[in-house]
Amino acid sequence: MLQPELKLRRDKIRSLMTLKDIDAALITCNANLIYTYGQVVSGYLYLPLHSPALLFFKRPNNIKGEHSFPIRKPEQIVDILKEQGLPLPPKLMLEGDELPYTEYVRLASLFPDAEIVNGTPIIRQARSVKTSVEIEMFRRSGIAHAKAYEQIPGIYREGMTDVELSIEIERLMRLQGCLGIFRVFGRSMEIFMGSVLTGNNAAYPSPYDFALGGQGLDPALPGGANGTPLKEGQSVMVDLGGNFNGYMGDMSRVFSVGKLSEEAYAAHQVCLDIQEKVSSMARPGAVCEDLYNAAVDMAEKTGFADKFMGIGQQAKFIGHGIGLEINEMPVIAPRMKQELEPGMVFALEPKIVIPEVGPVGIENSWVVTNEGVEKLTNCAEEIIELGK
Amino acid sequence: MLQPELKLRRDKIRSLMTLKDIDAALITCNANLIYTYGQVVSGYLYLPLHSPALLFFKRPNNIKGEHSFPIRKPEQIVDILKEQGLPLPPKLMLEGDELPYTEYVRLASLFPDAEIVNGTPIIRQARSVKTSVEIEMFRRSGIAHAKAYEQIPGIYREGMTDVELSIEIERLMRLQGCLGIFRVFGRSMEIFMGSVLTGNNAAYPSPYDFALGGQGLDPALPGGANGTPLKEGQSVMVDLGGNFNGYMGDMSRVFSVGKLSEEAYAAHQVCLDIQEKVSSMARPGAVCEDLYNAAVDMAEKTGFADKFMGIGQQAKFIGHGIGLEINEMPVIAPRMKQELEPGMVFALEPKIVIPEVGPVGIENSWVVTNEGVEKLTNCAEEIIELGK
Repeated sequence: MLQPELKLRRDKIRSLMTLKDIDAALITCNANLIYTYGQVVSGYLYLPLHSPALLFFKRPNNIKGEHSFPIRKPEQIVDILKEQGLPLPPKLMLEGDELPYTEYVRLASLFPDAEIVNGTPIIRQARSVKTSVEIEMFRRSGIAHAKAYEQIPGIYREGMTDVELSIEIERLMRLQGCLGIFRVFGRSMEIFMGSVLTGNNAAYPSPYDFALGGQGLDPALPGGANGTPLKEGQSVMVDLGGNFNGYMGDMSRVFSVGKLSEEAYAAHQVCLDIQEKVSSMARPGAVCEDLYNAAVDMAEKTGFADKFMGIGQQAKFIGHGIGLEINEMPVIAPRMKQELEPGMVFALEPKIVIPEVGPVGIENSWVVTNEGVEKLTNCAEEIIELGK
Repeated sequence: MLQPELKLRRDKIRSLMTLKDIDAALITCNANLIYTYGQVVSGYLYLPLHSPALLFFKRPNNIKGEHSFPIRKPEQIVDILKEQGLPLPPKLMLEGDELPYTEYVRLASLFPDAEIVNGTPIIRQARSVKTSVEIEMFRRSGIAHAKAYEQIPGIYREGMTDVELSIEIERLMRLQGCLGIFRVFGRSMEIFMGSVLTGNNAAYPSPYDFALGGQGLDPALPGGANGTPLKEGQSVMVDLGGNFNGYMGDMSRVFSVGKLSEEAYAAHQVCLDIQEKVSSMARPGAVCEDLYNAAVDMAEKTGFADKFMGIGQQAKFIGHGIGLEINEMPVIAPRMKQELEPGMVFALEPKIVIPEVGPVGIENSWVVTNEGVEKLTNCAEEIIELGK
């Protein structure tokens, strides 16, 4: 990562710190370190308002640089700040929504005279508007993601289960350069590389906060494919995370074994229409709840309200910000007054579950431009018959 | 999960709570919910000392049962406890090393009159001694893990990179039933399914706290394979997590392209000898640091001290407890006075990195029995030549 890009990102955080009179940030969670330092390290980036950031690192042991200091434990940070002639911050922010309680308390205790505040919302706000470098990384990952999905029809074999198909798609994604790891914010989501859902498994309620559920293979990971054989007349939705360079691109496509019911094709078209409608509304200043309400309104008018975003347990969002984590700001959901801004990147995923058939719908990643939105994940959107 | 098994696990935690005068635990982190409730839920298990556990759940919405209560937010927990005629706990434990700071504070505020303590060490201590059901799950996962590894020589193709080999091994693991997800405790480790290391990449220092490092494919995930072509005369170490049922089995095996240097074979034999020595010492009452010191002593006497557990950046452990997470108690490391107990399960991984060749050594998972240890991951331990 080039220094001007890192400086830009750090200054985005600093601007928001200024608004809250925060003098410095101590950053140590991996996604935030990738954002502000360009790579994962075991250590801490100390980001003061008015002087360059300092890195205090434990591992790897081969880091060099003017502002980098090896440490064994965080208690050394304050001494080094003093040695460097830097003032201790009257008001310091820590990653309160991300750091474990005992670690937060330990870090706070290093600055006994400082007011300590939760910096996670500020960093998430800064991260929600992507730089042009980040948008270009999404663009590249969208191309790789699409290349993997385009090969899916060719790997299907009659008699496969959803899990077997998922394994071959995971391999396609990895061969395109997917890092595999699926980063999420918070504890409400946990998944391997993504989900492949067919038939009634798509309606199985899951503990996780994804658009659709699935039973999974084990109570230790109750989400996604569960070993259901792929059957004539059923749909398969592929929704794998596209992490090719740290940025979590998101894309879903639907396949079929043979032909589906007319209702399924109609529902799929409704989802495409919702995507068309919402993406035409999405531009700087558009309010997230308005986008959500427009989608729900179309699902209601077409008679699919009770199957929209699941059956029985329905997800209460149609889209979500993406970035270094799969669930960033903004969220396209009820009561979300947030307005879109140029540079925001989000996944839009209107989906409908048809009993005895499976899931239909679409998901793409989009970036907000000055005038509207640009699609980052481009490949065929119709339901593609497997093995044809 | 059968109720008697869950009762046994909960009572193990309760026994340790009694020693600290703790009246109740509120458990919400996934690994601890799998342990005490048998599956991941979005919710909270309230575990009082003297009455049955209550589940407060948000998702999935299809949970039934006498002691299960649907909630929308944790603030409802206290009202329900009162409705059930249960006393509020004078001393309550929360998962302080695992819960994010703001979430811990929110949960603590529900019980304003209670003394709140960190329950993570207690739960980790309970989890460190496995039940017979858990040991049987490890035994089964060891068999599946070995079945996948046995197929590795057959998937090798000349000209492959470490990443390409890794992708095919990941597929073998998934086809054997591996859930894929790699659960760790804390923030010091992050990995996809595991690592495949060849040549000098094995010596690349990583920010993560694994036995060996590797550069990885991207600064966003700097560990493991980095795209190095597999070359004649180099070794490849395969170390993937064996999560087939929630329990993280751990096993490493070494392969070669052609023949390796004599030094490499000698170093491999030293690792096997260390494994033999340490496993013969390991029994109830054995002290972890003694096992560690015995291993380092053998590495020194054979002249491999500077290459043992890495070059340049050397890992300071030779083994670690495994369970629902890859890094449980006990840790076989310097200054660890902890004694082994029957039912503890650990991975032992003496490894040596040979410059210009790559990593050699061995890793198996072991359970402590009444008399000694039993190996849970059984397959050939010599260096196997790929493509032969």
